[in-house]
Amino acid sequence: MSSGVPETKVLAIASHVVYGYVGNTMATFVMQSLGCEVSAINTVHFSNHTGYKQVKGRKTPAEEIQQLYEGLQQSLLNDFDVLLSGYIPSAEAVEEVGKIGRELKYNSAMKPGSFFWVLDPVMGDAGHLYVSEDVVPVYKSLLRHADLILPNQFEAETLSDVKITDLSTLATAIQTLHHSYQVPHIIITSIRLSKHSEKTIPGSYSTSAEGGPGEDEIMSVIGSTARSDHSPRLWRIDIPIYPVFFSGTGDMFAALTVARLREAVFEAGIQNTARWQSPDDVEPTDLPLAKAAEKVLASMQAVLQDTYEFYKNAIPAIEAIDERTGEAMEEKAIKKRDKLAYLRKTKAAEVRVVRNVASLINPPDVGNYRAVAVDVEFTKDEGDSQPGELTVVNSGGGADHGAVHTENDSR
Amino acid sequence: MSSGVPETKVLAIASHVVYGYVGNTMATFVMQSLGCEVSAINTVHFSNHTGYKQVKGRKTPAEEIQQLYEGLQQSLLNDFDVLLSGYIPSAEAVEEVGKIGRELKYNSAMKPGSFFWVLDPVMGDAGHLYVSEDVVPVYKSLLRHADLILPNQFEAETLSDVKITDLSTLATAIQTLHHSYQVPHIIITSIRLSKHSEKTIPGSYSTSAEGGPGEDEIMSVIGSTARSDHSPRLWRIDIPIYPVFFSGTGDMFAALTVARLREAVFEAGIQNTARWQSPDDVEPTDLPLAKAAEKVLASMQAVLQDTYEFYKNAIPAIEAIDERTGEAMEEKAIKKRDKLAYLRKTKAAEVRVVRNVASLINPPDVGNYRAVAVDVEFTKDEGDSQPGELTVVNSGGGADHGAVHTENDSR
Repeated sequence: MSSGVPETKVLAIASHVVYGYVGNTMATFVMQSLGCEVSAINTVHFSNHTGYKQVKGRKTPAEEIQQLYEGLQQSLLNDFDVLLSGYIPSAEAVEEVGKIGRELKYNSAMKPGSFFWVLDPVMGDAGHLYVSEDVVPVYKSLLRHADLILPNQFEAETLSDVKITDLSTLATAIQTLHHSYQVPHIIITSIRLSKHSEKTIPGSYSTSAEGGPGEDEIMSVIGSTARSDHSPRLWRIDIPIYPVFFSGTGDMFAALTVARLREAVFEAGIQNTARWQSPDDVEPTDLPLAKAAEKVLASMQAVLQDTYEFYKNAIPAIEAIDERTGEAMEEKAIKKRDKLAYLRKTKAAEVRVVRNVASLINPPDVGNYRAVAVDVEFTKDEGDSQPGELTVVNSGGGADHGAVHTENDSR
Repeated sequence: MSSGVPETKVLAIASHVVYGYVGNTMATFVMQSLGCEVSAINTVHFSNHTGYKQVKGRKTPAEEIQQLYEGLQQSLLNDFDVLLSGYIPSAEAVEEVGKIGRELKYNSAMKPGSFFWVLDPVMGDAGHLYVSEDVVPVYKSLLRHADLILPNQFEAETLSDVKITDLSTLATAIQTLHHSYQVPHIIITSIRLSKHSEKTIPGSYSTSAEGGPGEDEIMSVIGSTARSDHSPRLWRIDIPIYPVFFSGTGDMFAALTVARLREAVFEAGIQNTARWQSPDDVEPTDLPLAKAAEKVLASMQAVLQDTYEFYKNAIPAIEAIDERTGEAMEEKAIKKRDKLAYLRKTKAAEVRVVRNVASLINPPDVGNYRAVAVDVEFTKDEGDSQPGELTVVNSGGGADHGAVHTENDSR
């Protein structure tokens, strides 16, 4: 049933929404469906995710998070194997989560590998913070306690203080995170590659056409597990981009990664190695982190493809309402009509995770999402590249290139 | 994957605990694993269930419940097929949930069968209320809007104002709820039958021996769907009792019932019939409610049997700690030791629902949990029975008898 994932007790600290699937509402079900025991501390109790542009509910104060953890402590319920921390709305609350992570780490100090912290430093996207600025230094202070971090490109820049404009700076950012903060495992969850640069490079990745993912861009997931000298071992998996914004995909990624990484770590026999670090002679694509990410992305793409089909089928009815009511309307009425259509479309784009549990348990077509090792080179002087472009050269297989855009990832 | 349960959007209003499985923490996963989309409004945010005898966290105020529902309304997210309401900590909050239930009912008025309210009137057990007294009249005022209620024996007594002391009063209680409140479907989730009375009645139910459920008692689940004249159609399923208190089983029962009843109602083709009421000529054991309960109880017993095995395996280590530290201890230390052992045992008894998802999806041995029709008779004048005893006579199959105890059910 649980496809090989060993019994795993996860403390998940993230948001709860009544309707839809983001934060813990996504992560809890995903991890449970893979057999994990999930204890969820909810950092918000919201009616829906913020993609709807209106929301009611309450943020959980830092002291409530602390009390809930104290409640676990006093009843001997805090023997977690993994901490997965996601969206936390205030610097004070991030600090409390930091205390929890450090305490769990301290408790496990005598048993290497028995506790692992997956930290998703949810701070912003596309060049903008959506938490207050005082959250950034708190996250920086926590990084050294985290075992795996899952920043998007903007968050990686923010945490490393390295602006990612090309491959060299990407490598520098990852190396900085490995080195300065001694984070052993990093996945940057979204680097966009434009079709523009594909055109300039023969043999580059081409997305599937009709009815499928967007044709303009592809996205790469780039990860690394440090060697003992903190140098990165980089791998990459390309994934399609859909022309729809799906909320909660970052949380789905994190949750699947918890389960699949633990599975891969047991398969590699390094579950009793501190921080699940692979020996230095393990190649990038043989890393448990890369193996895990292949299954994670195969599951995700199956779920998102089904969601996209559902979304496309729902759109005509939503737009028919638009047209029917579109004639001779006052501006206010048009505004209301547009708002309702927007809400309906946002709802239609809720990730269909429950009805696709089979794809979570048995990721289909994993072969399409094989990690490839990447070497990095400066590209600024190459003729074909635009200023600020990033070139990622596959060491295994054909060359894939693409410009970095600081657009929304799909978190 | 979802074993026939049609796509179902459920609003679940109950408690959230960080560790363990009760309330929404139980119900959400159970319903999701059967393919339901679940929107959870959490009435508490607690570290653990109260079986640990110590808990930290917060009750959700009534106005927060109201605001969260408003949040759903304003974004068109309240198109639920089913409302499942469970533990609600205050009369004000029960009133808010009542408003939500009535609003959803009103919205669906033009489409019979399109909305169904499963109300678990969590108020108390074993003769004691564990909510404040002012909750009782509020629940009474809501009953006429509920489509299925799931009281335990004490709650059925409290709501019907009928003391259940024998079969006649049991029937009266159910008939009162059908008639006075026009609740079409009722399941009384626990009526205990003592071995004492088994001994006096040849051919009575006998529990499996060694390593299995308790040998002293069995428990019956008794349900009814009213005919159009509000008369009950009673059926019964016997289930084993385990010698351990499992928290959250009432919530597991309710969640499974939502999914399985909806499945059975579609199979019977009455999903567009108001309140899913079967025609008068449908026999008790052919009711969708009875068909659903068979699968529900088969799933539950498989999960509880596995939980019980886990519990039994965990006990020796817990008790070994007791003995090792038992010599020459001061009273305070003994008290602390006993408390720790109690906490560990309570933890070991957490229902293993995640690792047993296969039994939720494919209930094993359903044939062992067939509903039988029951006729009711006064028994007070029969020699073999004790005062206050209840005799339930199977109309199909052998006679099963047993005394009613107002003990804890396993909620």
